[in-house]
Amino acid sequence: MSNPFTLRLIATDGAARTGEITTAHGVVRTPAFMPVGTQAAIKGVHHDDVRGSGADILLGNTYHLMLRPGAERVAALGGLHSFMRWPLPILTDSGGFQVMSLAPLRKVSESGVTFRSHLDGAQVELTPERSVEVQRLLGSDIVMQLDECVRLPAERGEIERAMRLSLHWAERCKRAFEGAPVGHALFGIVQGGDDLALRQQSAGALTDVGFDGYAIGGLAVGEPQEVMLRVVAETTPALSPGRPRYLMGVGTPADLLEATARGIDMFDCVMPTRNGRHGLAFTRFGAINIKNARHADDPEPLDRESRCSAARDFSRAYLHHLFRAGETLGGTLLSIVNLYYYQDLMAGARAAIADGRYADYVSETREAWAAKRDLG
Amino acid sequence: MSNPFTLRLIATDGAARTGEITTAHGVVRTPAFMPVGTQAAIKGVHHDDVRGSGADILLGNTYHLMLRPGAERVAALGGLHSFMRWPLPILTDSGGFQVMSLAPLRKVSESGVTFRSHLDGAQVELTPERSVEVQRLLGSDIVMQLDECVRLPAERGEIERAMRLSLHWAERCKRAFEGAPVGHALFGIVQGGDDLALRQQSAGALTDVGFDGYAIGGLAVGEPQEVMLRVVAETTPALSPGRPRYLMGVGTPADLLEATARGIDMFDCVMPTRNGRHGLAFTRFGAINIKNARHADDPEPLDRESRCSAARDFSRAYLHHLFRAGETLGGTLLSIVNLYYYQDLMAGARAAIADGRYADYVSETREAWAAKRDLG
Repeated sequence: MSNPFTLRLIATDGAARTGEITTAHGVVRTPAFMPVGTQAAIKGVHHDDVRGSGADILLGNTYHLMLRPGAERVAALGGLHSFMRWPLPILTDSGGFQVMSLAPLRKVSESGVTFRSHLDGAQVELTPERSVEVQRLLGSDIVMQLDECVRLPAERGEIERAMRLSLHWAERCKRAFEGAPVGHALFGIVQGGDDLALRQQSAGALTDVGFDGYAIGGLAVGEPQEVMLRVVAETTPALSPGRPRYLMGVGTPADLLEATARGIDMFDCVMPTRNGRHGLAFTRFGAINIKNARHADDPEPLDRESRCSAARDFSRAYLHHLFRAGETLGGTLLSIVNLYYYQDLMAGARAAIADGRYADYVSETREAWAAKRDLG
Repeated sequence: MSNPFTLRLIATDGAARTGEITTAHGVVRTPAFMPVGTQAAIKGVHHDDVRGSGADILLGNTYHLMLRPGAERVAALGGLHSFMRWPLPILTDSGGFQVMSLAPLRKVSESGVTFRSHLDGAQVELTPERSVEVQRLLGSDIVMQLDECVRLPAERGEIERAMRLSLHWAERCKRAFEGAPVGHALFGIVQGGDDLALRQQSAGALTDVGFDGYAIGGLAVGEPQEVMLRVVAETTPALSPGRPRYLMGVGTPADLLEATARGIDMFDCVMPTRNGRHGLAFTRFGAINIKNARHADDPEPLDRESRCSAARDFSRAYLHHLFRAGETLGGTLLSIVNLYYYQDLMAGARAAIADGRYADYVSETREAWAAKRDLG
């Protein structure tokens, strides 16, 4: 018997909040960073290392999983938790974002979106109802509504059309989600681009429909950080304080700190693993490009005091060598370093919010990044 | 203070032997399989997993390491054990084999071999003395003499020329190795192609010079398994029984069992990791091609009773999916599966030899492979 899906707020500090989300597969400490397991795997990283980093929850991509291996197949194999052997909570996106970015010949209508699979060209229809069905077949703890996300900059009319379509789809997703097992949640997604009035309308209308949590979508799609943060700051007050708030696809360590300060509880981003594979390590001392020649003879690890073995026990010279030699172990180790750092950053944020010193935490963290930037 | 390099024989069973080699960095249980860490990394596999598999010793490739990151750099960083964070024994090859297979514009003379680096075209000279120097800079526990390995089939005259050149180089390597620290060893390499008389000459001459151990080189270079095994069977009796015997670059699980039966103590091969990256798993039930469509819906793991988590805890369906989806985690997990299986195979061989039932072990192992072959 699962516990109901709830957010328990432990403390607030300004607009920043820390708490615990209870789901069917366990508790998520917030603010939380969710590593991205696009195709039922965190790229290049063993599940045990993802768990070791302190991640409470993973994100899976509905678009990829519905095409390969297929939602019905995953369901027959016991659901995504069992399939990929991740016993903790999983959030799945709706598939909409990847349809827009990956699928050729896509066509959006009121009923949903049709597209051709980027794998085999097969024609696929993704409606709000099918998106929820796929996510329930996967066994997701947190199901996202299907939405349409427009790239910025865009015309106001286009942003408004997509926002209103997303609202209609939100209502249909809510109906499709009825009867879901206890502990599972459906999140609505605020759209509206960089238009604050549209964002307010979207947030208000979604709150009227009523969801288990709310995401802010359509950001981190090319706009400046200040635009993103302004939209976040103006949107979170319009959302139910008792529900989790999730900023989709964000971001850099600085983005996470600033969005947390504006009331966000959950984040996901491929940056720790993607940048890790490309040789960029996130550390307490800022970002370090390990491929830089200055590291070739450096016996120092990335962070002698890290709880992450990859950051603590391997020299920069060795990590540098792995990248120069094209050994994939380099990308794996830096991905692990980054996953740990993102979790440590969030753990620090949770503790600082609980202590009422979040602003100090942000400025101290930023100072440490800046102080050693010239060493990167 | 290190212990001297020694082989302690625990038991023999026919020509098969089990024992313990003591080196400067610890004990190697024989027969031993050495995973290959070509460029100071086991491809795609974290060191902790290599250790977890039960490997007592790694192989490093002198050719690769002398070119990148460079032997002097590794020495300045504390040697290969410290550089790659592998505290157990390391054997390095001489560089000769890769010069022959990878380097363009190579030229062999009595003094050594000159070649152009495959990385940057720089002209490099590798003499017996430089090979030993490089391996000592790396801090290798077991240094291999420089030799010349000819591909089979080859003319007898060519095989004999290379064998005699390798003998001259063996003597020069021995002189260059004088003064090496306690616990470090130099191995001579028997050459002679598929000519049993030349093999006997080579083995006898090397034994007269006297080395800490003896390798059989120039096999697994294209000849049938029966040729390889006949050469092994005819060569091992000519080698000092109190010294380790190492069959270079071999091989399949069946090769390991059969060569052990003919008196070999040590093996190395890229097969567990290379085949793992290509979707081939070695198991108690034979080789399994996980990319085969029959695995797409199979909830069974590769081996429910394995001590290896990757073999025991992930379904074949999930592993199949990782390969289909191009996730490198698939190759990593199958590499780990294979490294464990090779170590388990050797552990079983050691136990069976100690119990005087090695022939039974070989036939039982082969029967288990054959019984389920149609399921692969």
